[in-house]
Amino acid sequence: MFKKLLVANRGEIACRIIRAAKELGIQTVAIFNEIESTARHVKMADEAYMIGVDPLDTYLNKQRIIDLALEVGADAIHPGYGFLAENAEFAKMCEEAGITFVGPSWQVIELMGDKARSKEVMKKAGVPVVPGSDGILKDVEEAKALAREIGYPVLLKATAGGGGRGIRICRNEEELVKNYESAYNEAQKAFGCGDLLLEKFIENPKHIEFQVLGDKYGNVIHLGERDCSIQRRNQKLVEIAPSLLLTPEKREYYGNIVAKAAREIGYYNAGTMEFIADQEGNLYFIEMNTRVQVEHPVTEMVTGIDIVKWQLRIAAGEKLKYKQEDVNFKGYSIECRINAEDPRNNFAPSVGMIERYYVPGGFGIRVEHAAARGFEVTPYYDSMIAKLIVWAPEWEIAVDRMKAALETYEITGVKTTIPLLIEIMKEPDFRAGKFTTKYLEEHPQVFDYKEHRDKEDFVAFLSAVIASYHGL
Amino acid sequence: MFKKLLVANRGEIACRIIRAAKELGIQTVAIFNEIESTARHVKMADEAYMIGVDPLDTYLNKQRIIDLALEVGADAIHPGYGFLAENAEFAKMCEEAGITFVGPSWQVIELMGDKARSKEVMKKAGVPVVPGSDGILKDVEEAKALAREIGYPVLLKATAGGGGRGIRICRNEEELVKNYESAYNEAQKAFGCGDLLLEKFIENPKHIEFQVLGDKYGNVIHLGERDCSIQRRNQKLVEIAPSLLLTPEKREYYGNIVAKAAREIGYYNAGTMEFIADQEGNLYFIEMNTRVQVEHPVTEMVTGIDIVKWQLRIAAGEKLKYKQEDVNFKGYSIECRINAEDPRNNFAPSVGMIERYYVPGGFGIRVEHAAARGFEVTPYYDSMIAKLIVWAPEWEIAVDRMKAALETYEITGVKTTIPLLIEIMKEPDFRAGKFTTKYLEEHPQVFDYKEHRDKEDFVAFLSAVIASYHGL
Repeated sequence: MFKKLLVANRGEIACRIIRAAKELGIQTVAIFNEIESTARHVKMADEAYMIGVDPLDTYLNKQRIIDLALEVGADAIHPGYGFLAENAEFAKMCEEAGITFVGPSWQVIELMGDKARSKEVMKKAGVPVVPGSDGILKDVEEAKALAREIGYPVLLKATAGGGGRGIRICRNEEELVKNYESAYNEAQKAFGCGDLLLEKFIENPKHIEFQVLGDKYGNVIHLGERDCSIQRRNQKLVEIAPSLLLTPEKREYYGNIVAKAAREIGYYNAGTMEFIADQEGNLYFIEMNTRVQVEHPVTEMVTGIDIVKWQLRIAAGEKLKYKQEDVNFKGYSIECRINAEDPRNNFAPSVGMIERYYVPGGFGIRVEHAAARGFEVTPYYDSMIAKLIVWAPEWEIAVDRMKAALETYEITGVKTTIPLLIEIMKEPDFRAGKFTTKYLEEHPQVFDYKEHRDKEDFVAFLSAVIASYHGL
Repeated sequence: MFKKLLVANRGEIACRIIRAAKELGIQTVAIFNEIESTARHVKMADEAYMIGVDPLDTYLNKQRIIDLALEVGADAIHPGYGFLAENAEFAKMCEEAGITFVGPSWQVIELMGDKARSKEVMKKAGVPVVPGSDGILKDVEEAKALAREIGYPVLLKATAGGGGRGIRICRNEEELVKNYESAYNEAQKAFGCGDLLLEKFIENPKHIEFQVLGDKYGNVIHLGERDCSIQRRNQKLVEIAPSLLLTPEKREYYGNIVAKAAREIGYYNAGTMEFIADQEGNLYFIEMNTRVQVEHPVTEMVTGIDIVKWQLRIAAGEKLKYKQEDVNFKGYSIECRINAEDPRNNFAPSVGMIERYYVPGGFGIRVEHAAARGFEVTPYYDSMIAKLIVWAPEWEIAVDRMKAALETYEITGVKTTIPLLIEIMKEPDFRAGKFTTKYLEEHPQVFDYKEHRDKEDFVAFLSAVIASYHGL
């Protein structure tokens, strides 16, 4: 096992990694800058070094981080997510410096980073992608034949298009013929090129992703899927494992495809294949993330497997302890992202000092956070300040538990997503599992919440209580 | 299910009960007094009433609590632990007022409250008790015959004794004969009565207890055992489930005895049978606690069964959903009691305001607490301010996880048991499962800890870091 690990990240994920390292008996090194000198990850690590002044450059300064690792004798670097986590060049620099990068090989990071090539590679490895034309359509007859083959509705897209222009949904052949001409002409006029593509249109899609774990000896397993459909501005807000969409048979079917494909590209460490899913539970590959995901805890909760510890063990050369048949799924887990932002104001970031802070605890309740009272939420980083995760044996109990836990979570001083999340937990479609990536647009009523009872409310409440006491 | 539940308690257990009620959709009512007006349970409940000025009387004022329940329309009262939890009279008053008391019948509470009678009843129901004379010994010959039967070592005890006087450990017949006379004479002189009892002496005992859950229709199951041997001043400090002592066969054997006995006395709701155990895993009944225990979470973690929610469901007349064969044990769980006290000063209570407070989170980590920054630890209540619970698939991982979580837990402003608990997690005998109720006396080295890095340390640390930065 490693002697010393440099954690090239901040916030909750840095704390998560430090904790995993502590449990494995690895010494930890944190990095920080002037504005984060009192941050939680700095306090938690065995050593901490201020390596910059600029809030962002600190965690992006490849050379400085590697120099520090060499200087303090760290034999491994965990990049977390974001920042340098999917930077093939950084992974390569680590290798060249003789430091283990906790992640897959830089070659695989590079390959999966090229979205067009990764799709081709995955298609070749047997992973389903959204069906469509292989290249530019010859004419409307080819479009008609292809649409008949893959089934309506289909999407016509101008190769030169962008911002929604030159895109048409066609629900039958009549519409296809009509749209072909208008889309061609529009694209010709707007971009000087009328070339069109055709692909299947996935209506009311869900975002489903599969967790993969592989060692350096070709052993790869999948840990099932997560449903991350509830998003705000294309960013995940609520994540669930397992999805309510896939049957055990479909899970096994896609899981095996995913594990086989990862094996074929020589993938090791933790990774995630993201899919778009239709209402029947058919999955189409979008991209692969070559790092730990924000939402990895829900998979840990239903499988009992510690993904971050396994990242470290695999990186250190350990063999995977589990075979696919050892992976069992138990109950349901939900994660809610607690962001410092104002949901009603288009999720604008909310900065300031956290005044009161109380974390819910209890059976089946897990918190991943770096926040505390007195913690300063700055505009420099992602607005996510904590993750609240629950587990329960049944879906309905998990939703009730999340609602109760959110109601207990107390954060004042900044606006947060908590009141919105409470409304989502109460909303019937969510409870019934009926949600797609369009959930927030289609359920504006969840924005109609009462603000969390704040200090003034509480003082008024108390006064009333004390007044009532005089009649005791 | 109940409409409204009055929680006749405070602190973490009141919060635990309110959360369980919230998850079941039950409205909650908290009670408090002047010094607890900003307490967490007051904030968490749907309604809260100040019913007293005296810190203790508030939670002990039977009539006032029942009057309030009737006034606000609460149809059930949960007593938690301590205070009125094992008060048969209060349970009877609830019944007479038409309010459901969340616990067993008042008759059973009364019966188990009488320690001598409860032992007799349990013995009759087939529960093993410490073997010994049924009453006063006739003479030394009877003592010799009995000791031969139950095996050495044995204990001679004066019926009128107390404070260790008139008690003798006898390791063989020679010692028994010698001690019989001296104990008799000592008791005769000291108490005016030389009557002696004899019982088996359990060397290096462990404290083992079995969790029982029964409904109102005669269905009773056990949820396995906990090892609560690590104690300070006869109060539990660390609790574990399952014990490292019992084999699965012994667990089943004693579990069945316990469930059968509970069924025979008409026990319903949650309860715990406490035993003294020898090193071979033989158990001898001490007493039964007719309420939820402080350490119930460790059982929840290894069985997945929510004990407090089941207390409410059983009290409301629901049938137990689980049969004994549905109860499976998975992994290990440890609970540490975070007390505001100074371990090095004989665990004297430490009062004051909590200045900094950071709660560890993560996979397999559970916190039950009512504390927060700014929370005032008063001398009026039990010194326990939080419970830290971990789960892991294996014992060693659970210990490492607890150690890492304790190191992350930050409480300043009062002294706590945290640094002592960290040392226990590191100590080889504890890690090897070799601990008895004498653990703290026999391992004084665990008191030789470094105080948690406090504010001054941290400022010094930071200064050093910032100084080093100038050489960047």
